[in-house]
Amino acid sequence: MTSSSHSSTASAAHPLDDAVQLTASSSSAAGQYEGQTHPGYWNMVGPFGGVTAATLLQAILQHPDLLGDPLSLTVNYAGALTAGAFTVQATPVRTNRSTQHWTLSILQADPKSGEQVVTTTATAVTAVRRETWSAGDVPMPDVPPPSAQAAMPRGLGVEWLNRYEMRPITGAIPRQWDGSGDHSLTQLWMRDAPPRPLDFLALAALADVFFPRVWLRRAHHVPAGTVSITVYFHATAAQLQATGTGYLLGQARGQEFRNGFFDQTVQLWNEAGTMLATSHQIVYYKE
Amino acid sequence: MTSSSHSSTASAAHPLDDAVQLTASSSSAAGQYEGQTHPGYWNMVGPFGGVTAATLLQAILQHPDLLGDPLSLTVNYAGALTAGAFTVQATPVRTNRSTQHWTLSILQADPKSGEQVVTTTATAVTAVRRETWSAGDVPMPDVPPPSAQAAMPRGLGVEWLNRYEMRPITGAIPRQWDGSGDHSLTQLWMRDAPPRPLDFLALAALADVFFPRVWLRRAHHVPAGTVSITVYFHATAAQLQATGTGYLLGQARGQEFRNGFFDQTVQLWNEAGTMLATSHQIVYYKE
Repeated sequence: MTSSSHSSTASAAHPLDDAVQLTASSSSAAGQYEGQTHPGYWNMVGPFGGVTAATLLQAILQHPDLLGDPLSLTVNYAGALTAGAFTVQATPVRTNRSTQHWTLSILQADPKSGEQVVTTTATAVTAVRRETWSAGDVPMPDVPPPSAQAAMPRGLGVEWLNRYEMRPITGAIPRQWDGSGDHSLTQLWMRDAPPRPLDFLALAALADVFFPRVWLRRAHHVPAGTVSITVYFHATAAQLQATGTGYLLGQARGQEFRNGFFDQTVQLWNEAGTMLATSHQIVYYKE
Repeated sequence: MTSSSHSSTASAAHPLDDAVQLTASSSSAAGQYEGQTHPGYWNMVGPFGGVTAATLLQAILQHPDLLGDPLSLTVNYAGALTAGAFTVQATPVRTNRSTQHWTLSILQADPKSGEQVVTTTATAVTAVRRETWSAGDVPMPDVPPPSAQAAMPRGLGVEWLNRYEMRPITGAIPRQWDGSGDHSLTQLWMRDAPPRPLDFLALAALADVFFPRVWLRRAHHVPAGTVSITVYFHATAAQLQATGTGYLLGQARGQEFRNGFFDQTVQLWNEAGTMLATSHQIVYYKE
């Protein structure tokens, strides 16, 4: 038995669902949606990039012509979104028998000129998956369970971090910026906070939760921001459902840091050891 | 001293330069170029995907508004190009102080309807690189030099393979399709054939030379084709120039093979051990 106030809390939308909420434009343009940035996922100078990726995926999932499930998503962060309204344009440019190719963009009125400017571009592929021979070639690392790891404290300075429960195993954010870093590998257990049953939207966002590898590699704090991220979805909807509100093991590593940009490779498994997604990104850093 | 016939041979364009040749359209549309598929890079049902990627990059490099050098390129293969003419549209949708965001597509007349259809979509980022603190976190594996490895024989069935010299170290294409595969790692030395000084175009194409990982993992031959590839460029133009006509060490590995699609991670170093590019792709396979 729950009190009415509890019921009200329980039935309130999860902040992620609020953040990715899109309304089809009243205009006749197909695939045009209106959204709003969400203060709960605010980063330093714009929304958390993972939520922007999830919002673009949401436009695809809401599109009446959608074929299949997400297979790949590439998001390019051309400019920071400002707080407020934005427009998503999602276009299925080619639909084959079992794959569909999408181009997307986010547009927002420039605060000074009022003109619509592109803040984000993206492409995606959705696909009808069929059961085939399957195998993993990157087994989940042997790590302690989520319960054995302390959760990162809240209030680390940016609001979106409070929307995730993260339990680092190795490669936590440096406590001392003393230049002592010697590797770029992070492994952590993570899930939405409050817990939320996993779906493709949450998975897309979770692929982007890792703090900049350059901070870990150098134990030195420099300005950094994702320029482009790609997510490959390996999970079926049934595997996402089976994962539920359980933790994901996230693993991130930098490969090359050179002249202002580094790349990061990411793997995401559920607690049962199923690889749900792999991801890559190229990240700007200063100095 | 060279004879005139030798001179003539020496001055002929490399097949890769022929393949990526683009002519600005006479129409007023900025960033619109006309190209032709090249029989020398023909795969089974269309051009080698690496040359399509290089052609898209070429459109960017020829664009009068280009800022900086290639940083990232994502190409989505929506449908096979047929032999003949095609149109590339390259648009710099946003230019920042040191980065520029591109959207691209390839269009071709449908053989039946004559209508222009999208065969390929892409996004790219170019950037002005500045010298910063730099480090590699994936050192080149310790492998025998190119001279110690035999070159793959010519005439393996598809024409584009003859445009590359490949010297496998491990994970060569299976000799027997007997289902005995147990890993998906390939390491090989490679370069253009005939040798051609390395540039961003050749590097983009070289990121896609690996045969489908599913063939190696299973030692079983199934239809397979790249759906989407991303290349991150770490090299400066000076590092490419220093690489010259030397070999690259290419390393490719599958991560997850599931329900008709697998992903592949790739690293490319020059002989001096400099990481020139990293790449990822998601690939369709049947059965």
